[in-house]
Amino acid sequence: MVESRFLTPEQARHIRDQFGTPVYVYDERTLVGNARAALAFPNAFGLTVRYAMKASPNAAILKLFRGLGLHIDASSGFEVQRAMRAGFEGCEISLSSQEWFDDFEELYHKGVKFNACSLNQLRRYGQMFPGKSVGVRFNPGHGSGGTGKTNVGGPGSSFGIWHEWLPEVQEIVREHQLIVERIHTHIGSGSDPAVWQKVADLSLGLVRQFPTVTTLNLGGGYKIGRMPYEKTTDLQEIGQPVREAFVRLADETGRQIHLEIEPGTWLVGNGCCILSTARDVVSTGNSGHQFIKSDTGMTEILRPSLYAAQHPITVFPESPETTTSDYVVVGHCCESGDLLTPSPEDAEALAPRTLATTRPGDLLVIDGAGAYCSGMSAKNYNSFPEAAEVLLQPDGSPRLIRRRQTLDQILQNEV
Amino acid sequence: MVESRFLTPEQARHIRDQFGTPVYVYDERTLVGNARAALAFPNAFGLTVRYAMKASPNAAILKLFRGLGLHIDASSGFEVQRAMRAGFEGCEISLSSQEWFDDFEELYHKGVKFNACSLNQLRRYGQMFPGKSVGVRFNPGHGSGGTGKTNVGGPGSSFGIWHEWLPEVQEIVREHQLIVERIHTHIGSGSDPAVWQKVADLSLGLVRQFPTVTTLNLGGGYKIGRMPYEKTTDLQEIGQPVREAFVRLADETGRQIHLEIEPGTWLVGNGCCILSTARDVVSTGNSGHQFIKSDTGMTEILRPSLYAAQHPITVFPESPETTTSDYVVVGHCCESGDLLTPSPEDAEALAPRTLATTRPGDLLVIDGAGAYCSGMSAKNYNSFPEAAEVLLQPDGSPRLIRRRQTLDQILQNEV
Repeated sequence: MVESRFLTPEQARHIRDQFGTPVYVYDERTLVGNARAALAFPNAFGLTVRYAMKASPNAAILKLFRGLGLHIDASSGFEVQRAMRAGFEGCEISLSSQEWFDDFEELYHKGVKFNACSLNQLRRYGQMFPGKSVGVRFNPGHGSGGTGKTNVGGPGSSFGIWHEWLPEVQEIVREHQLIVERIHTHIGSGSDPAVWQKVADLSLGLVRQFPTVTTLNLGGGYKIGRMPYEKTTDLQEIGQPVREAFVRLADETGRQIHLEIEPGTWLVGNGCCILSTARDVVSTGNSGHQFIKSDTGMTEILRPSLYAAQHPITVFPESPETTTSDYVVVGHCCESGDLLTPSPEDAEALAPRTLATTRPGDLLVIDGAGAYCSGMSAKNYNSFPEAAEVLLQPDGSPRLIRRRQTLDQILQNEV
Repeated sequence: MVESRFLTPEQARHIRDQFGTPVYVYDERTLVGNARAALAFPNAFGLTVRYAMKASPNAAILKLFRGLGLHIDASSGFEVQRAMRAGFEGCEISLSSQEWFDDFEELYHKGVKFNACSLNQLRRYGQMFPGKSVGVRFNPGHGSGGTGKTNVGGPGSSFGIWHEWLPEVQEIVREHQLIVERIHTHIGSGSDPAVWQKVADLSLGLVRQFPTVTTLNLGGGYKIGRMPYEKTTDLQEIGQPVREAFVRLADETGRQIHLEIEPGTWLVGNGCCILSTARDVVSTGNSGHQFIKSDTGMTEILRPSLYAAQHPITVFPESPETTTSDYVVVGHCCESGDLLTPSPEDAEALAPRTLATTRPGDLLVIDGAGAYCSGMSAKNYNSFPEAAEVLLQPDGSPRLIRRRQTLDQILQNEV
């Protein structure tokens, strides 16, 4: 029988009784361990680890990471404000956003670092802050996916400034006397060290074009294994060729470039589960399936519906149970696509799982739910309130870090 | 040039100036027209139209529909409470939910109608309310999609009680002396009248098994055309064979069955657009694409990312523009899948659209955004606040029906 990643049945029942379900349960020990491992990323001339806070932006998690020395990668001006409210200094935050933030000037004066992600953004920044330092995010023309598909690098990606516009970038920089101090090239490169070597070389090639650059930010995209058959990126392994590339540049040019990385999923993905209750078990007969209807679903975990993501599911039966059965696990929304066990190839195809024989009232633990779950869900669909969040402290006791939403709050802006 | 469905450039600019973007704009005239057309659904012995409020649950829309005589199809106890707060009587609301609502007893005493959607739900209802009236939702073993895929009928669907469990249903009914007064068979049947005839016959077959039944609810699933090449279900056309089937049953048995339907998308889908601003226009060169970066995306409209849904997009250029260009339109989230122009076959493949030449600051109108957009979005992803909602009144003036969320509100439950 598969066990849940960090939660015991006793802890699970205690949390259920105290906070209800569905509830996100973060594991402080896992988060701390991952943060320390990220801070040990191989580097030649210094390292800054920025938490990609869009993965899970609760203030308790932000504070925990700040205490360990992590900085912030923000994807919107709102995220910057949120990080500052959680205690981060402006200078600890780097903003790389698809759209210009209208109140950016205020953030700038608080020290927030800006990565221009388009020629227009760079121009606007130059007009507002001539002569100042800036970062530039490039799309180096090489992504982790195929052409024509969405990914974060290559001609099919809108993220960053296309590498062919280097002369335009240099022209804007000259015009506004900007100092390019950072290059950013997040292209989501998986777990293959050979790919990372290529990425580092490509990115350092851009660094060579800007003598003022002192920092290279390689972004995030470090994959993790949620399911037993999936592999977690070994940061030591992929970091070595990156470190070596930095050393080669230094040997050749004397430039000692500071490294930044921006993990999100890698830090929090396996550091959280959703604790849910099996509200019903139904069957569509011999030619059909057995279904577990949980009290969570796309309202808390959209990834299976959105991209057929696989999450481990463990049943904690209320009474001792040694038999198993095959189940399709569905969410509580009145939506055919609200499916927690899709086929890995097709979010709409049912892929039954072998689980402990389940009865209504049994607890379900959905693991690997730390990244892009609480932060990216179909919140309030079917008018379900936002779930509570709990942090399991090192002594095993749960601490509430977000209260369950009320219906009044869902309606509070209706006029 | 394609025009937006109901919004003029002047109205769009006025709304932008008054409420900002992104903003949902509902068109009262369209909503009223659709409600009246639904109320004219062919029927032999009476009709109740229930608005499937999960499609878009704003109180202003609920009140508007109540004034026109619509009742409510609720998918959760929270939706029931929300509808009652908007003015609906309990007896005007029917609850069909994947999970039992813990506070259901209170709703029952307010007159809310309950459709048992599983044997366990029916048993629990029988234990709590022996001798009382109840509805039963069946899965008649025939859906609108293929086997093994998610849909709302057939062995691959967890919705409703599988038709083979009819003896078990009758046993529970006998044991608790329940009176089955409604049969419900939502199987999402599209726009083909021949399919609807089959659905009606299959459903009336279930009605024959319960002499106490007085109402048959055929659910929703009436498709609409958002794009010019998509067809909107003609309710008069699909309703005729349904009406005839009801007449045949009456001729044969003397039973005059009341009809209920539960449209959601059909009522609101084309009655709303998202008004957005093009924040940037970028290019990945000759072998790449031109991208429009909008200030909306999966935070307001998840359907393109979730199931490659196609929505019309119209540009309202700030300065007169007669040329066009091909664009990929992306959302504002730092997420490669935040794509507003996916290929209809693949949510991750880019499908450029020919649009008026667009400059940053131009307005974008995303039509067909009334159903499962505001109600089902990746709200607060990247910490973007929930967008405002506006109702365009018959005189053309906009009325705010939901204020834009603040960052304080996003954080209000953090501890």
